[in-house]
Amino acid sequence: MEKIIVATTGAASLIALLFALLKAKKVLKFDEGNDLMKKISQSVRKGANAYLSRQYRIVIVFFAVIFVILGAMAIMKLLTPYVPFAFLTGGFFSGLSGFIGMKIATASNARTANACREGLNKGLRIAFSAGSVMGFTVVGLGLLDITLWVFLLKFVFKLPDSEVTGAMLTFGMGASSMALFARVGGGIFTKAADVGADLVGKVEAGIPEDDPRNPAVIADNVGDNVGDVAGMGADLYESYVGSVISSCALGVSAYKSFGAMALPLCIAAIGVLCSIVGTFLVKTKEKATQKELLGALSRGTNFSAILIAVVSLPLVYFILGKDNWQLYFAILSGLISGVLIGQSTEYYTSDSYKPTKKLAETSQTGSATIIINGLSVGMLSTLIPIIIVSVCVLVSYFVSGGASSSAHGLYGIALAAVGMLSTLGITLATDAYGPVADNAGGIAEMAGLGEEVRERTDALDSLGNTTAATGKGFAIGSAALTALALMASYIDKVKLLPGGSEKISNLNINNPTVLIGLFIGACLPFVFAALTMNSVGRAAQSVVMEVRRQFKEITGLMEGKADADYAKCVDLCTKSSLHEMVLPTVVAIIVPVAVGIVLGCSGVVGMLAGATATGFLMAVFMSNSGGAWDNAKKYIESGHFGGKGSESHKAAVVGDTVGDPFKDTSGPSINILIKLLSMVSIVFAALVVKFSILG
Amino acid sequence: MEKIIVATTGAASLIALLFALLKAKKVLKFDEGNDLMKKISQSVRKGANAYLSRQYRIVIVFFAVIFVILGAMAIMKLLTPYVPFAFLTGGFFSGLSGFIGMKIATASNARTANACREGLNKGLRIAFSAGSVMGFTVVGLGLLDITLWVFLLKFVFKLPDSEVTGAMLTFGMGASSMALFARVGGGIFTKAADVGADLVGKVEAGIPEDDPRNPAVIADNVGDNVGDVAGMGADLYESYVGSVISSCALGVSAYKSFGAMALPLCIAAIGVLCSIVGTFLVKTKEKATQKELLGALSRGTNFSAILIAVVSLPLVYFILGKDNWQLYFAILSGLISGVLIGQSTEYYTSDSYKPTKKLAETSQTGSATIIINGLSVGMLSTLIPIIIVSVCVLVSYFVSGGASSSAHGLYGIALAAVGMLSTLGITLATDAYGPVADNAGGIAEMAGLGEEVRERTDALDSLGNTTAATGKGFAIGSAALTALALMASYIDKVKLLPGGSEKISNLNINNPTVLIGLFIGACLPFVFAALTMNSVGRAAQSVVMEVRRQFKEITGLMEGKADADYAKCVDLCTKSSLHEMVLPTVVAIIVPVAVGIVLGCSGVVGMLAGATATGFLMAVFMSNSGGAWDNAKKYIESGHFGGKGSESHKAAVVGDTVGDPFKDTSGPSINILIKLLSMVSIVFAALVVKFSILG
Repeated sequence: MEKIIVATTGAASLIALLFALLKAKKVLKFDEGNDLMKKISQSVRKGANAYLSRQYRIVIVFFAVIFVILGAMAIMKLLTPYVPFAFLTGGFFSGLSGFIGMKIATASNARTANACREGLNKGLRIAFSAGSVMGFTVVGLGLLDITLWVFLLKFVFKLPDSEVTGAMLTFGMGASSMALFARVGGGIFTKAADVGADLVGKVEAGIPEDDPRNPAVIADNVGDNVGDVAGMGADLYESYVGSVISSCALGVSAYKSFGAMALPLCIAAIGVLCSIVGTFLVKTKEKATQKELLGALSRGTNFSAILIAVVSLPLVYFILGKDNWQLYFAILSGLISGVLIGQSTEYYTSDSYKPTKKLAETSQTGSATIIINGLSVGMLSTLIPIIIVSVCVLVSYFVSGGASSSAHGLYGIALAAVGMLSTLGITLATDAYGPVADNAGGIAEMAGLGEEVRERTDALDSLGNTTAATGKGFAIGSAALTALALMASYIDKVKLLPGGSEKISNLNINNPTVLIGLFIGACLPFVFAALTMNSVGRAAQSVVMEVRRQFKEITGLMEGKADADYAKCVDLCTKSSLHEMVLPTVVAIIVPVAVGIVLGCSGVVGMLAGATATGFLMAVFMSNSGGAWDNAKKYIESGHFGGKGSESHKAAVVGDTVGDPFKDTSGPSINILIKLLSMVSIVFAALVVKFSILG
Repeated sequence: MEKIIVATTGAASLIALLFALLKAKKVLKFDEGNDLMKKISQSVRKGANAYLSRQYRIVIVFFAVIFVILGAMAIMKLLTPYVPFAFLTGGFFSGLSGFIGMKIATASNARTANACREGLNKGLRIAFSAGSVMGFTVVGLGLLDITLWVFLLKFVFKLPDSEVTGAMLTFGMGASSMALFARVGGGIFTKAADVGADLVGKVEAGIPEDDPRNPAVIADNVGDNVGDVAGMGADLYESYVGSVISSCALGVSAYKSFGAMALPLCIAAIGVLCSIVGTFLVKTKEKATQKELLGALSRGTNFSAILIAVVSLPLVYFILGKDNWQLYFAILSGLISGVLIGQSTEYYTSDSYKPTKKLAETSQTGSATIIINGLSVGMLSTLIPIIIVSVCVLVSYFVSGGASSSAHGLYGIALAAVGMLSTLGITLATDAYGPVADNAGGIAEMAGLGEEVRERTDALDSLGNTTAATGKGFAIGSAALTALALMASYIDKVKLLPGGSEKISNLNINNPTVLIGLFIGACLPFVFAALTMNSVGRAAQSVVMEVRRQFKEITGLMEGKADADYAKCVDLCTKSSLHEMVLPTVVAIIVPVAVGIVLGCSGVVGMLAGATATGFLMAVFMSNSGGAWDNAKKYIESGHFGGKGSESHKAAVVGDTVGDPFKDTSGPSINILIKLLSMVSIVFAALVVKFSILG
């Protein structure tokens, strides 16, 4: 029975990877277009490859250092010997997810642009297929990694379940570290290039976006791939794996049975299969309108979600038995909450609704008012998601029997996160297709494919903004739930350590070590956001200088008679973003250990709670402010309040520029931060219990 | 003995009030200058009077409603019968503090301007005397209110100490409600007028600040008085009283002795006397430099602080005995922390240091980069204050015996807040003098007193910015400590209620009701900041429209041949700010009760912890971002990066405009919010215990 479950999830993971492979083959059959398009696409590919290979080289050093530290701790018997290796595989698979996503995205951009010459629908199909490769690679690799480790630890080394989940949490730390590097590094790259290109090209030189005369234009396109694609891939791999393994761990501690540990794996496996079925519904007639296109995508995701909801009920009943089938509602509440948070995100950031329309209106009184209003839209938009998450936590806790046993209730919260992410295969596919469409637009512009093609790629791109909003809802909501589950896992872990129980006996919120941990944890997302925004600012500054230099020194560039030195800008972005990504990540690793050593385990728990609360708020705030500014600008560009080139538009561009690091660097990184803090705390728990000073 | 202590504090409060009276008489002896100055000053006075009287009329309705509700609860035996009356006196004295501050400030502005015609030093003395009136009125009234109630409840009605402190906490709620109205209403008024005047006058019409042709110029000056003076007076009255009464309450619960309850009163009384002594040191030679002026002010505050530190030691020893004299270090750590937070504020916001200089530099690449950088300066600046507060909490908790009894430790935290605010008389004097100098500058400009006079008022104003930074440090730091103390008082209060103990037995941070309370509490400052910023935006928008209308419709206005309709702008600001101030305050009252009814007492505790943590962070972030933008603008105006009128300057003005509601409306209001939430929770505790649904 146990082996059958593991074999099934293994099979599901391989099906996902096979499906991704088939989709990739399909995409690669299409033509890349004319020579110029091939050349541009090649440059982007080369830049992205160069960036990632240099990024991985830095990351490898980091992983080697942590590996040695974990190895030393294993020798000191503070960790089991599997832990350092688990850490490495988590990092490896997370990086691989991003890498494959980047590969397929850079291979699809020119193909999508070329397909758009024939029609909107063909373009959508290629871009969505590319997104699917990414989506199913992420879930396939995630599930594979988990299955392999369960198989190895449980059936080969025959460890007890609690040690199996303990080691698995470590590969979560590997995945999170890799994800943070990828998100922060990629996020800085993409925004530095974007801001740099816009500030000099659009504002100073007055040339359109994606104009081939702009020296930063290739860097901008490379940025989409290394930030929005590779960064997002690593990020969601981490979310997915984190939610599954934390619920496995809590399941073992609540039920002491393999069934409770297997349930999250099975839900994930079912999610993969249902998502694949959903992708087949994403097709539309030729000449479809924007709304019909969105309908096609929604049909796929909604069908998958409903299918999962239906299939999970008998599954839960079968695995946990008739006394515990109510846990189904925890999964269901997660699934529903994810959708609702996505809708709330859409409400606050889409120009179909009041907040963004009003925001666009405030651009009429200048950039100061649009900034003030955009900030307040983002801050206000935290209320609904926090209520949704709160209700989800309460429901999943109490239906799982939290009233009589908190361990059971916490398992319920973790299951809600798994439920929320069970549709990841297809939601990520609709999400990851956005950057491909964005890049296709860039190529269409640079290759001079004409108004009509550009309009089509713009339509695809704008659709991508909507699906990205939904995707962000899932990423943020699941991060909060997973972080709560990991916090519970941490408490469990400490209790099992020798001398740990007494160290963690007073988790009262008015215990000063808990309170101070809370204060420090709550402060971390602010500091982290500041560091990453500063990094973008510094990197962008250097791009601005370089672009200005090229405009000045390369004669004939503005007239289109000489080529810009694209590679120089790519190289500059690469160097500065890699340089800038190290500090934030190192902070995220060191702080939990330092807090633990000084304040003890109760301080760590306080820190995790504080970081989760403000991290969630800051992520929602920054993502939604950024999204609202972006769409307010687009709303004005579509002809409102004076349209392109008006004073309103200039004010809106300022808003959008402020929003860029908000929504694409700092906001998404915070999601990873809050989980990484928990993972690090768990891995170093034994050290903290042994050496803590206070409490 | 007990009566002697009460008589002494009563005497100290009367001395403070007498001192304020003498200072006021001294100020009023000076001349208001020429007729034009008198006329301008009269207009400002009239506008401020009109605003406050209308504000109080609205507030009276609110107080009447709450009074009836509290009365009903008293009849239902959910409260003692003194509570509704205590609530009223808190509100009354808080309002009175603001009112007196406003009266003296509006009486001193023309006098300060006139004195500046003779010399800088004379101007400083008048402005500082006006500030002293405000400072000592606030502490005098605060101490008087507390003393009266102790006398009444303890010696006339002969209630046990725990009931005495219980009723006193209620007048804290009255004071906090009044303070929130004053801060939010005044804050919206001042920033709507300021932003409106700047956007149309400076940016569109291109006339200087405080130019008499600008129709919003009187409204702008009225705003300084109703926001920065009356709002601050009510605010700090609330902080002061809140810190003293919460430590009285915790003292009674920890030591069950009158001594522990009397200690905070005695420290406050000593603080008043030492502050008076300090004011005598604030004098300087004629022709003093800016630095010497600042030195004169610092000498006064530092001397007072050291005097308090010296005198408190024997006092603590005398009152608490030789077993508990270590509590002295709690007071001392509060005193020191307040100074350190002020210095950190100064570092991040003064243009003498790197952050603001760097910020000014980023204005060269436009408004987007100065906004991004200003936000990140503010976010980063949360780190040091949070560490200072954390260390202060730890020190004061453990020196007070928190390791063996948490009640004793919590009393220590409350004492730290009292220690921090013990110098309030003189720090508030140096703080409140700022708006007087600011107004004097306005009058000098409008009355055309010439470059030299304006330069002197500018020097005073700029000095005021530095002292305001220190003042903000005290306000924010003490708010966090007081909020923690009030949270502890809440827990105490619930435990004493019938059936309360079991309702609050599980305050574990991973109890889902605590966690969700934490999430909701953490969200409140974001929502509150958004609401108040939106209010400023809306109110400013209406001022912009009105000013534009006047420039268009009043012929000869731009040429200085016709008078602007100043009263119309004042009236507009009054109406819109009073309209806008209601919602945020009502939210702050309803949410704690609603959270309590749904989640129970443990949810309330979570909410308070969450709101305190993010409230502190948001207040520091918003105040410091705003301060840094303001001073970056001034730095550029002083001739750097192109100086006045350059592109850099325009970008910096955008930053400053965004910063206005940050630092003068939302940021300071959040300080009050976090205490009001606790006060409301305490007053409605019995209701919540009786009717709560979950937990």
